[in-house]
Amino acid sequence: MVNVGVIGATGYVGIEIVRLLQKHPDINITSVVSQSFVGQKISDIYPNLKNVFDMECEALDIDKVADKADILITALPHGISKEVIPKLIAKGKRVIDHSGDFRYKSVETYEKWYGIKHEMPDLLELSVYGLPELYRKEIKDARLVANPGCYPTCSILGIAPLLANNIVDTKNIIIDAASGVSGAGRTTELAFQFCECNENFKAYKVATHRHTSEIEQEVSLLANQNIMLSFTPHLAPMKRGMLATIYANLRDSKSCKELIELYREYYKGEFFVRILDEGKIPDTKNVAGSNFIDIGIVVDERLNRVVVLSAIDNLGKGASAQAVQDLNIMCGLPEKTGLESPGLYL
Amino acid sequence: MVNVGVIGATGYVGIEIVRLLQKHPDINITSVVSQSFVGQKISDIYPNLKNVFDMECEALDIDKVADKADILITALPHGISKEVIPKLIAKGKRVIDHSGDFRYKSVETYEKWYGIKHEMPDLLELSVYGLPELYRKEIKDARLVANPGCYPTCSILGIAPLLANNIVDTKNIIIDAASGVSGAGRTTELAFQFCECNENFKAYKVATHRHTSEIEQEVSLLANQNIMLSFTPHLAPMKRGMLATIYANLRDSKSCKELIELYREYYKGEFFVRILDEGKIPDTKNVAGSNFIDIGIVVDERLNRVVVLSAIDNLGKGASAQAVQDLNIMCGLPEKTGLESPGLYL
Amino acid sequence: MVNVGVIGATGYVGIEIVRLLQKHPDINITSVVSQSFVGQKISDIYPNLKNVFDMECEALDIDKVADKADILITALPHGISKEVIPKLIAKGKRVIDHSGDFRYKSVETYEKWYGIKHEMPDLLELSVYGLPELYRKEIKDARLVANPGCYPTCSILGIAPLLANNIVDTKNIIIDAASGVSGAGRTTELAFQFCECNENFKAYKVATHRHTSEIEQEVSLLANQNIMLSFTPHLAPMKRGMLATIYANLRDSKSCKELIELYREYYKGEFFVRILDEGKIPDTKNVAGSNFIDIGIVVDERLNRVVVLSAIDNLGKGASAQAVQDLNIMCGLPEKTGLESPGLYL
Amino acid sequence: MVNVGVIGATGYVGIEIVRLLQKHPDINITSVVSQSFVGQKISDIYPNLKNVFDMECEALDIDKVADKADILITALPHGISKEVIPKLIAKGKRVIDHSGDFRYKSVETYEKWYGIKHEMPDLLELSVYGLPELYRKEIKDARLVANPGCYPTCSILGIAPLLANNIVDTKNIIIDAASGVSGAGRTTELAFQFCECNENFKAYKVATHRHTSEIEQEVSLLANQNIMLSFTPHLAPMKRGMLATIYANLRDSKSCKELIELYREYYKGEFFVRILDEGKIPDTKNVAGSNFIDIGIVVDERLNRVVVLSAIDNLGKGASAQAVQDLNIMCGLPEKTGLESPGLYL
Repeated sequence: MVNVGVIGATGYVGIEIVRLLQKHPDINITSVVSQSFVGQKISDIYPNLKNVFDMECEALDIDKVADKADILITALPHGISKEVIPKLIAKGKRVIDHSGDFRYKSVETYEKWYGIKHEMPDLLELSVYGLPELYRKEIKDARLVANPGCYPTCSILGIAPLLANNIVDTKNIIIDAASGVSGAGRTTELAFQFCECNENFKAYKVATHRHTSEIEQEVSLLANQNIMLSFTPHLAPMKRGMLATIYANLRDSKSCKELIELYREYYKGEFFVRILDEGKIPDTKNVAGSNFIDIGIVVDERLNRVVVLSAIDNLGKGASAQAVQDLNIMCGLPEKTGLESPGLYL
Repeated sequence: MVNVGVIGATGYVGIEIVRLLQKHPDINITSVVSQSFVGQKISDIYPNLKNVFDMECEALDIDKVADKADILITALPHGISKEVIPKLIAKGKRVIDHSGDFRYKSVETYEKWYGIKHEMPDLLELSVYGLPELYRKEIKDARLVANPGCYPTCSILGIAPLLANNIVDTKNIIIDAASGVSGAGRTTELAFQFCECNENFKAYKVATHRHTSEIEQEVSLLANQNIMLSFTPHLAPMKRGMLATIYANLRDSKSCKELIELYREYYKGEFFVRILDEGKIPDTKNVAGSNFIDIGIVVDERLNRVVVLSAIDNLGKGASAQAVQDLNIMCGLPEKTGLESPGLYL
Repeated sequence: MVNVGVIGATGYVGIEIVRLLQKHPDINITSVVSQSFVGQKISDIYPNLKNVFDMECEALDIDKVADKADILITALPHGISKEVIPKLIAKGKRVIDHSGDFRYKSVETYEKWYGIKHEMPDLLELSVYGLPELYRKEIKDARLVANPGCYPTCSILGIAPLLANNIVDTKNIIIDAASGVSGAGRTTELAFQFCECNENFKAYKVATHRHTSEIEQEVSLLANQNIMLSFTPHLAPMKRGMLATIYANLRDSKSCKELIELYREYYKGEFFVRILDEGKIPDTKNVAGSNFIDIGIVVDERLNRVVVLSAIDNLGKGASAQAVQDLNIMCGLPEKTGLESPGLYL
Repeated sequence: MVNVGVIGATGYVGIEIVRLLQKHPDINITSVVSQSFVGQKISDIYPNLKNVFDMECEALDIDKVADKADILITALPHGISKEVIPKLIAKGKRVIDHSGDFRYKSVETYEKWYGIKHEMPDLLELSVYGLPELYRKEIKDARLVANPGCYPTCSILGIAPLLANNIVDTKNIIIDAASGVSGAGRTTELAFQFCECNENFKAYKVATHRHTSEIEQEVSLLANQNIMLSFTPHLAPMKRGMLATIYANLRDSKSCKELIELYREYYKGEFFVRILDEGKIPDTKNVAGSNFIDIGIVVDERLNRVVVLSAIDNLGKGASAQAVQDLNIMCGLPEKTGLESPGLYL
């Protein structure tokens, strides 16, 4: 049994990690930390857990939390990481973090897109980008894993085989994506109120969303050249689910069949990546509640352009379930452990 | 390992049973029968199951299906049961059925409320009403289990402790309930189209819903007297979830605390029945995706009336998960096996 | 042209009043007052109004606002009324208010249910309960109209003909109602976030909702006896719409046809009250966006009980559109003016 | 008063036309034709209209329907047009049609994308593409107006100023769009059931949607060159609303301010086209229920690319309300008549 503490356990990402770990056969949750609910049972905040997992929320006492755990998972509001992560690392603990702070190779890129100074540049050298399909080996022994953003997970896995195989022009890549509202977290902002979101669809942060830079970093590494691309997030009136629609111009003409073959080869052995058959397009309902990413491929022969559709649960493969996948890798456990549930569909 | 065949596997109840059983450690699914999709993989119909459970749908060949299984679960459109169940029973197979056909003690009641002749009255003597909290012992050895309707499950468990303890007047019981749309099944009726249901709330079959008679049968048995009551179903714009709001006049004044105590005593040891603390009211999101029923109790002292709120997932405790609970009992397995998942909340 | 100012114009009730009045042929909006958005165009807050109605939001300067208007409509957060209404009345202005402060005949009832001291008891004598179907004459010349709550509007109109005609037992009246989320107003409470509300259904404030006392006051007056009843509000995952399901025991047996006749007689000439034909049940989508109330009647002969279903738009007949109806009456205009739009259905 | 008959009045497009015309001050509805509901009141099918507009549905007797009307609006299932339109035209009636049959200049393009033979090629010469902002003059005297598809309306108006002014490269235009479910019409297909759509987001008909060809025809005319582009429709879990996110590479660098200026100049005097201020992005809720199109413009300077966001109500400007706008033009009425309602927001 591996002892794991969850810091920031009552946010939407945190509670989904708790939901997954409480039934994980090889993990023992040692702490659920929530500054807002110290002393309350976590099942009083999320009553779905009543009689299933009733642990009491602890204050963030780093020594206390760290002493009980081998690995800590942090899902903290932006800006608090710097008070927490360095101390955990200094105490020899391994960490899986959900902020943007450790996802970047370049401090400058981070500072430009986040508009703030990076306070822990030395930790960037330690950190590994926690996308198992690309960085499995590095994750295995990492001391600090930066779990990718939801949009980057969905986008990078959707386009990786094309770039790694030099199949597409890198100049006109466009990623148009839509997310469920849980991506905004457990917030009380007016914009995410039921009456503001239901029966509405909109884009937001067009050309300026921070995840653009995270996607660009990783696709540039895959293509071995500097790539800039368009990324437009949209908000759809649903709780969970994310779809990326990715456009790229083919260098040479390829059939859909060839590209599907290429994707299947690239993701060979990857249980959580499902490449759909020709003519099939992913629905987010098929992955909601799971760690799967479903990828459909369409070739528009008229335009010599490929359109890739990739679907995840933004709280699943896009956050919490992927954190558990990372955790399994870090612990030498089979990657599927605790993640066997397929999507709910209904 | 117990071998189980699912007949009617591609309806909403059937596929939820398949989703639960495919990860059940002690059950082996031997057939998924679907007349509409013979020869197709079930994961082509429900792609959430792709690479997780890809069994091919079989035609309904009773001999073939029965030979492979110890127990059959049937979730068939109304009127087909009579072609199937008697033959399965005759072959010595045990059956868990989801129709209304075997839920009644009285053929007359069935015929009155269903408006058709009962074609298998002899099987009624064999059949057990599959509500584990009331009929656990009978289910254990039953040859034919009639899984209760969703509204009856939610209503009967909500009111049982009051009637079994003779706490309320039986004359003015009112059950007002709302269900998610999946209760209508995998139908193509216009009334259940997205544009007809979203941003809408309505009652239906007021004073005439068949489940009224099923509820009345069971509460009459509990109270040891003939009870007639009002039951009004409503349709809420959501996929899963059911809430019953139950009103009854107290014979003698009781505090909320006393009634909660009484409920907890009545359901002692029942893992899937959660009696909420005083002041807490159930949300359907807390039970969606699970086999739990959450029950909240309010005493209106001004009126000497109790209001019970009981919440289930209509596809969970209201249908498929309860079928798995019945199956576990029939097989001598721990009742929680394969049903440990708490509700999703998000 | 009547000059009307709207105070509290950027809440959900206020903005719906603005939406209705801006196209009203006989009304001139003289001020839109919003403390939160002083100096901004109302169409910057609600961009649906862009190029249609772009008035700038004013601060609440009572003299300034009052000088421009003949009638003021107030839709203020609780507790601010007392700073505003008495001054407007003192200045000789007529007021339509949306708080609970002026809906009560009895200061004691108000104070008991609201848990605070009533600060303007003298104004209660002036005020008229703004339900046109019951108080049309009084509204006509009223200086202060208290627009009813949404649940009371839906409930009182649903049951009035039964009580006024002494048709039902007054002891066992139960009103079970569900509302869309906009009833909570433009709030940022977590409970009304999209992710907390979607795919969820729940009751709230069971046996303690303030609207209970408002309903009881009016039904007692109608029946000419003191009535206490059960009222249970529920929250449905939709923006607009409200349904009340009302149960009462018939004194003598009546057919559905007789009751429909009685309702039609009682509401003769009431354009906004639609009594549905036998066998028809209201959908909230049919009244959403309108000032209609749809009422369906079912007699449960087995139980000698009537079940009345009444549907409104909680922001329409339940608040803003009814305010416009009151305004029309106060101004001697045809009641339908500016309210001709039927519900949207889609 | 102009006499207008609506043929196909009980589909979602038809009923929205009826809803708009029944309150239109200068239009008299002479027939509502619906083969499915002959002899029933339209307000029995759509009870929102009860007591407001209760006309009886007629069978399609072309002589009878034509004799009563000056102009006919047809919203028929595909394939029936050819039985109806030529006869109406032959009788000297003017027609506004909602099928794809008369939107094309080229029979070949139609036949290629629709996969069927065009049966009325001669009528193509008569027909005018009913997009008022581009073809107002032609619509005025047209005998046959082909109301554009919803996606084409949203896309063409979104990109027109860029192409008409030769501002963008025509090679890499990508239109990524999402629609509410009402776009599928009043259908009983399983794919549009509530349980299949809610909490789901997906693309469909990628690279093959017929509207691609309609968009290409019009943008080619605007740019005076042959343009092929990517168009990807998505289905969002809402009833009404459509958003197009349009990407194009700028020929020369332009600021957002310059482009907004250009759009405002291009659409000068167009009441229904609202160009948002810099930094503002459209929400579909702002146009739902109205004839407005809201257009937001973002320049991604890093990529020298413009991203245009255009939002309509697919049933409003995308279908029925635009038909009324066309009708107003054809009748010499002010274009806003009957279309003054802003979007609902809530």
